[in-house]
Amino acid sequence: MNTFGNVFRLTSFGESHGACIGGVIDGCPAGIAMDMDFIQRELDRRRPGQSAITTSRSEADRVEFLSGIYDGVTTGAPVGFIVRNENQHSEDYDGMKDAFRPSHADYTYRMKYGIRDPRGGGRASARETVARCVGGAVAKLALGRQRISIQAYTSRVGHIGLDGSYEDYDLGLTENSAVRCPDPGKAAEMEALIAEVKARGDTVGGIVSCVVKGVPAGLGEPVFGKLHAALGAAMLSINAAKGFDYGIGFDTVSRFGSEQNDHFYNDRGCIRTRTNFSGGIQGGISNGQDIYFRVAFKAVATLLMEQPTVDGDGRDIRLKARGRHDPCVLPRAVPVVEAMAAMTIFDCQLSRSTIPDSAKKWPE
Amino acid sequence: MNTFGNVFRLTSFGESHGACIGGVIDGCPAGIAMDMDFIQRELDRRRPGQSAITTSRSEADRVEFLSGIYDGVTTGAPVGFIVRNENQHSEDYDGMKDAFRPSHADYTYRMKYGIRDPRGGGRASARETVARCVGGAVAKLALGRQRISIQAYTSRVGHIGLDGSYEDYDLGLTENSAVRCPDPGKAAEMEALIAEVKARGDTVGGIVSCVVKGVPAGLGEPVFGKLHAALGAAMLSINAAKGFDYGIGFDTVSRFGSEQNDHFYNDRGCIRTRTNFSGGIQGGISNGQDIYFRVAFKAVATLLMEQPTVDGDGRDIRLKARGRHDPCVLPRAVPVVEAMAAMTIFDCQLSRSTIPDSAKKWPE
Amino acid sequence: MNTFGNVFRLTSFGESHGACIGGVIDGCPAGIAMDMDFIQRELDRRRPGQSAITTSRSEADRVEFLSGIYDGVTTGAPVGFIVRNENQHSEDYDGMKDAFRPSHADYTYRMKYGIRDPRGGGRASARETVARCVGGAVAKLALGRQRISIQAYTSRVGHIGLDGSYEDYDLGLTENSAVRCPDPGKAAEMEALIAEVKARGDTVGGIVSCVVKGVPAGLGEPVFGKLHAALGAAMLSINAAKGFDYGIGFDTVSRFGSEQNDHFYNDRGCIRTRTNFSGGIQGGISNGQDIYFRVAFKAVATLLMEQPTVDGDGRDIRLKARGRHDPCVLPRAVPVVEAMAAMTIFDCQLSRSTIPDSAKKWPE
Amino acid sequence: MNTFGNVFRLTSFGESHGACIGGVIDGCPAGIAMDMDFIQRELDRRRPGQSAITTSRSEADRVEFLSGIYDGVTTGAPVGFIVRNENQHSEDYDGMKDAFRPSHADYTYRMKYGIRDPRGGGRASARETVARCVGGAVAKLALGRQRISIQAYTSRVGHIGLDGSYEDYDLGLTENSAVRCPDPGKAAEMEALIAEVKARGDTVGGIVSCVVKGVPAGLGEPVFGKLHAALGAAMLSINAAKGFDYGIGFDTVSRFGSEQNDHFYNDRGCIRTRTNFSGGIQGGISNGQDIYFRVAFKAVATLLMEQPTVDGDGRDIRLKARGRHDPCVLPRAVPVVEAMAAMTIFDCQLSRSTIPDSAKKWPE
Repeated sequence: MNTFGNVFRLTSFGESHGACIGGVIDGCPAGIAMDMDFIQRELDRRRPGQSAITTSRSEADRVEFLSGIYDGVTTGAPVGFIVRNENQHSEDYDGMKDAFRPSHADYTYRMKYGIRDPRGGGRASARETVARCVGGAVAKLALGRQRISIQAYTSRVGHIGLDGSYEDYDLGLTENSAVRCPDPGKAAEMEALIAEVKARGDTVGGIVSCVVKGVPAGLGEPVFGKLHAALGAAMLSINAAKGFDYGIGFDTVSRFGSEQNDHFYNDRGCIRTRTNFSGGIQGGISNGQDIYFRVAFKAVATLLMEQPTVDGDGRDIRLKARGRHDPCVLPRAVPVVEAMAAMTIFDCQLSRSTIPDSAKKWPE
Repeated sequence: MNTFGNVFRLTSFGESHGACIGGVIDGCPAGIAMDMDFIQRELDRRRPGQSAITTSRSEADRVEFLSGIYDGVTTGAPVGFIVRNENQHSEDYDGMKDAFRPSHADYTYRMKYGIRDPRGGGRASARETVARCVGGAVAKLALGRQRISIQAYTSRVGHIGLDGSYEDYDLGLTENSAVRCPDPGKAAEMEALIAEVKARGDTVGGIVSCVVKGVPAGLGEPVFGKLHAALGAAMLSINAAKGFDYGIGFDTVSRFGSEQNDHFYNDRGCIRTRTNFSGGIQGGISNGQDIYFRVAFKAVATLLMEQPTVDGDGRDIRLKARGRHDPCVLPRAVPVVEAMAAMTIFDCQLSRSTIPDSAKKWPE
Repeated sequence: MNTFGNVFRLTSFGESHGACIGGVIDGCPAGIAMDMDFIQRELDRRRPGQSAITTSRSEADRVEFLSGIYDGVTTGAPVGFIVRNENQHSEDYDGMKDAFRPSHADYTYRMKYGIRDPRGGGRASARETVARCVGGAVAKLALGRQRISIQAYTSRVGHIGLDGSYEDYDLGLTENSAVRCPDPGKAAEMEALIAEVKARGDTVGGIVSCVVKGVPAGLGEPVFGKLHAALGAAMLSINAAKGFDYGIGFDTVSRFGSEQNDHFYNDRGCIRTRTNFSGGIQGGISNGQDIYFRVAFKAVATLLMEQPTVDGDGRDIRLKARGRHDPCVLPRAVPVVEAMAAMTIFDCQLSRSTIPDSAKKWPE
Repeated sequence: MNTFGNVFRLTSFGESHGACIGGVIDGCPAGIAMDMDFIQRELDRRRPGQSAITTSRSEADRVEFLSGIYDGVTTGAPVGFIVRNENQHSEDYDGMKDAFRPSHADYTYRMKYGIRDPRGGGRASARETVARCVGGAVAKLALGRQRISIQAYTSRVGHIGLDGSYEDYDLGLTENSAVRCPDPGKAAEMEALIAEVKARGDTVGGIVSCVVKGVPAGLGEPVFGKLHAALGAAMLSINAAKGFDYGIGFDTVSRFGSEQNDHFYNDRGCIRTRTNFSGGIQGGISNGQDIYFRVAFKAVATLLMEQPTVDGDGRDIRLKARGRHDPCVLPRAVPVVEAMAAMTIFDCQLSRSTIPDSAKKWPE
């Protein structure tokens, strides 16, 4: 299943060491002005080789649109695109061709398909997320017209984490640091940790936090299609994701009900809540407050250390990876989290069955 | 969207204070023996009024099957069923008819649909999970024939939690305590906490842990349909769920890559891993090891205390709920978590494209 | 797959000789007033035993709604319903329990599921269309508010057919004849033919024509989701349907391109076509003109004559059906065609991505 | 909706005068050997400019695969591909930029999207069917391994038609004539008619017939997913299709039930039918006999004659098309019908829930 979304649908294709990563955006409304500079900037945020703490694989990651656009505007037809792969070093994988790398998808693909493309992780490579960033950029352009904004940032790397909530930081500072943390001091600590971990061939995980502002009340579906279930599935589909929570999340255990209920009040004609432990979602449907959530990412499985494993014939071997790898996915996961959030929110919005204006009572 | 699953699909209907909760299971293979005693026992585990720490609403929750079964066996036709509502006290809601209860779905339903059924939470009530337990019971019957087992338990209530992993407990003891915790000492503490919280009209949240044993390697889809994304969406669709993680989960931040990789080895012809930080899933596909995950549930929003809120005309009011409510959803969430896991795993299994036997190398 | 539709979705369940036929309508917008008399009248049009030329199985076919309605209006929650079976004569099928009736689904169900419910055709019985008529009635109520009307009629039975198009008849007369043909003379001939065929235990097929008026331009999807492809799939899913065409249909072979193109003209500010060979659909999308199509229905397979066949052990046998059967499905197929058309059109309408009003140029 | 299929899914993109036509085949099983010569030959059958009776637009139509293949074999990953457009003459459309061509999709796209790409019909052009032929070729490769074969042919052009059924002709002769009719005499007549029609700037329609041999019993879904409903939707999604019937089809009106029932018999251990009016499908499920059906195609709407219409401002104008167009789509529709049939059958096969071998009684 390489398609994401119900109305706004991204179908992705391509392998890490194939000709390209590509995708098709179907269900995109007509009339969206395609700001190519913005789209490219979004890809640049995800691009490998952008700083000392990411992989040194160097890719220009230029997107070529193949269809669905006329006079700079979407036509309602499917938007096909490709991003060529240029800097593969497939020979790095020769020695691992027949090995199941620990905590990678090599073994599970082999068991699912009976066959696998060994070059660079093939389809399981995080390079696939290029397609998501293109889809997400288009969704952001559409959401931006409605003043819905999405901002993610690195809130933890290993043991170094931010103590406050998103409201305690100036998220405009996020892109100032290579690690994409809005607290300059913590950012420096995180980067030092990543450099240290990288130096010894090891890797480290962390947490990305994300806030979506401006979502009107009424998005999401009750029961199985809850907005936070859709966001959770989107985030958990990102490579290396291990967990998701929203609003008070796992921290719910530290407060009684009387300490985490959000009270409604009438704020000069708008219904708001005084607190937002709900994370902007109640009963699976947005309530008009900020939506915020966290995604845990594990430490990258590829180590530049020798590890025991088995080969394709089931023989116990020892394996030492070569190749260019991220010591920590967090900095480059930030734009991917935003892209998946943008597509999820926009898809929910397009899926929403409209109600007669007469039934509305308050501005959303 | 009231349908769950792709091949094995449950469509659920019914409100808390309507005639019944019902459902249709479509895509169920023919030939599954419907063990009615087992199905009823699963419903009984979710039933209100089963102990002093759950709501006192009393429902027999007898399931009536309406179709799809002949001579005690599924025929491949859709299995329709209903569970009648008997013990509604709709009058308890009269005073709240026009109020938006804090942290409930009242306001968001009103903003989505322009109208709502105020009795007992309507469709947003956890009573809807009756249908999930029926679907889950059927999935469990099918999985049981393949020796796939699913066991959930309460691992935390408020500040009281289990320290160990599922392997440290005898999960056979889970059903011995009202709170469904396999550690008798902790169970007693949890129950005491719930009783205390209930006494003062407050509520408390917690964590359900779940382990699935016997899943063969190769289940789940790469990219957007990852097995843990499907499990996450399933769990986050349960009422009051606030978070999900699997394997090492959010705890990934406490270990470097070299400390959390799972090494493969050849165990007398089977490929296994020495540790299981991956939680049985790598690259979104099962690897044959135990699958385990956690779900955070918030403290119930309905308090028997007065709270400020607004009414349907946007006027600031104060509200004190009546009605019969759970002080803690955890004990009754355990069978719902299992039901959703069973449907997810069985659906993935039926969705799996088969590979030629000749391509298989090891027993799954 | 017992679900029809993408946004407005009917999931149907139940067997001919089970407890009931039921369904769940999901995705129905909130706020539709449920005119119960209208819905029941639609069921009465499909009801067996309504005239001398239909089966004598007698069913009241009272629909019971179980959910999704509050104060007589839909709430946006799924609408569950059942119609109880009352007048089964399952013993009529005892002798056929193990026989594969010619041109029935007995053999194919056996080969698909390895097992089958032999009573009255089980799930393959046309009794299943009760659920479609309920779904269709709800869709008609929603479409009626927008002045979209759907009218089907019997245009051919065996060799007796109407020569003109729908515009040549007063379709208001359709319900005046048992056979549902708007031409009283032809109706009498058709009814005489059906009576004659019935008398000798044989059956006869025919054609239902249908016209949909008031559909705005812009409904339907290009490429795979063309409006006529959706209508065709809907019609071909009805029991005994053998063919579908729309607009000029198969008759296209009798005219050159210059004789079947529909020329646009400006009719006082509205764009219309002078002719309508296109049947109201161009490039898969409605153009605002009347949509019309035909559905061919085969002669009913159940004959009250002896026929050769094989039994469940593959032995050649001779079989003579008992039971109560329609000698001709046409009269009762008319409301089913309308129901499927209503659900298809309403679903397409709900699926439509909206365009900004500023982009619209003419009234639809 | 530019995706076709449930398990084996083709997503198509690209416009007639854009960079390319492309597609993504998702859900294709691993291990299918990609016979590139065969795939290219299938495209060549659809290629414009292949004979005097098709459009003179000249395209090499070389397919470039971008992903999902390793060592010449599918890996289970999505198969992306493009076919570049080379011989557009977009200037031919300059004069029509703002006109709604009669019986074309110009007006309906404008009303649906508020905007359209005027070059060469954009997305509504039959050039889009290139993607279907690639998908169909891959499906044919998979079906061929199971000895399932699909053969379509032109059975009627205007008033010139074949009198017999597919069994009366040597379908191996189909590709010998430019018009793809297996009767050499009729083929010559058809070609003469098309040449004559073309000479006067007019166009003509006709019928494609198709037979699928080797499909095992048990494919297709009861109720809404009937095999013939899936085939019908597939065929009606092809440009210019106006009707579909299968088995006895619309001709059912010429025979009583006793004259069109198919009697089962035991043919040395296999269950077969003595006749095949059912067209290989009973109750929506294949019965193991040949599946055959017809598709009506209208006369091409683009005439090299002056016609009245309106322009984008709603002014009445007269329009004379330029450009290179087919006077009759039939010859080039034949491979497209086969491609859609192949994808439909293969998709149904992959969707089929398996039954235990022990439940099977006869070879399929």
